[in-house]
Amino acid sequence: MEVRIELKKGVIDAEGETVAKSLKLLGFPAKSVKSVKVYDISIEAASEKDAESKVESACKRLLANPVIQNYSLRVMK
Amino acid sequence: MEVRIELKKGVIDAEGETVAKSLKLLGFPAKSVKSVKVYDISIEAASEKDAESKVESACKRLLANPVIQNYSLRVMK
Amino acid sequence: MEVRIELKKGVIDAEGETVAKSLKLLGFPAKSVKSVKVYDISIEAASEKDAESKVESACKRLLANPVIQNYSLRVMK
Amino acid sequence: MEVRIELKKGVIDAEGETVAKSLKLLGFPAKSVKSVKVYDISIEAASEKDAESKVESACKRLLANPVIQNYSLRVMK
Repeated sequence: MEVRIELKKGVIDAEGETVAKSLKLLGFPAKSVKSVKVYDISIEAASEKDAESKVESACKRLLANPVIQNYSLRVMK
Repeated sequence: MEVRIELKKGVIDAEGETVAKSLKLLGFPAKSVKSVKVYDISIEAASEKDAESKVESACKRLLANPVIQNYSLRVMK
Repeated sequence: MEVRIELKKGVIDAEGETVAKSLKLLGFPAKSVKSVKVYDISIEAASEKDAESKVESACKRLLANPVIQNYSLRVMK
Repeated sequence: MEVRIELKKGVIDAEGETVAKSLKLLGFPAKSVKSVKVYDISIEAASEKDAESKVESACKRLLANPVIQNYSLRVMK
């Protein structure tokens, strides 16, 4: 299962901005760069639905900070 | 354009292992976690092909380390 | 030369908060965790002062984002 | 208490190498860059020794990966 964690709109993306700045300084005409953190998580579960529920719970408890981040899940089939 | 940078097989993924360890310690039965870095890059280009060529060149020059990382591009349509 | 990059006061430290949360969930009574990025940079320079000036210039051009980050240099003797 | 986590000798430092590459491409004569992760942790404890013992335990259980990383503690007085 793929977890994708992005910063919410309005939150400054320091890493993305540094990458954009580097690219521009090297002559690449980057307009913007957004950094996203992705985790491919393999988890023991009785079913796909169960896996999804466990990973979502892990996002809420640990992986994502709801004040500044959004997360989304994607099942890889 | 989405750039996805992953560690090559055999390279230790310290971040992924730390996340897996945390999840297990919290009672989530994670089998493995792989961390992936994603950048959504918007770049000035004459065409989609030109954008792809520029972003690929940026990966080679700056974003990915060919000794330990693989990269892939995905055009979002 | 050691470059230390910290988030300015008032900027949310997502990584530090995630680490603090993990520690609390594991039973460690963490009150707060602040994440800091450190680079040990070795640079060709005519003198220590020259090295410092070059590294400071690198911070301003690339390494630190003045909107959200402070940086400090420390010469290791 | 400051926790400093560094990669062991022989482990490739992808982030440090990318920063070094960027600096060189921008004309800064970087010889090498080593990336270090630092956490400033404030923890409830009965004494300084107790705090140190708790933070060291947190490093072993969660924060550092002994296969590839070294950690060190520094008490700020």
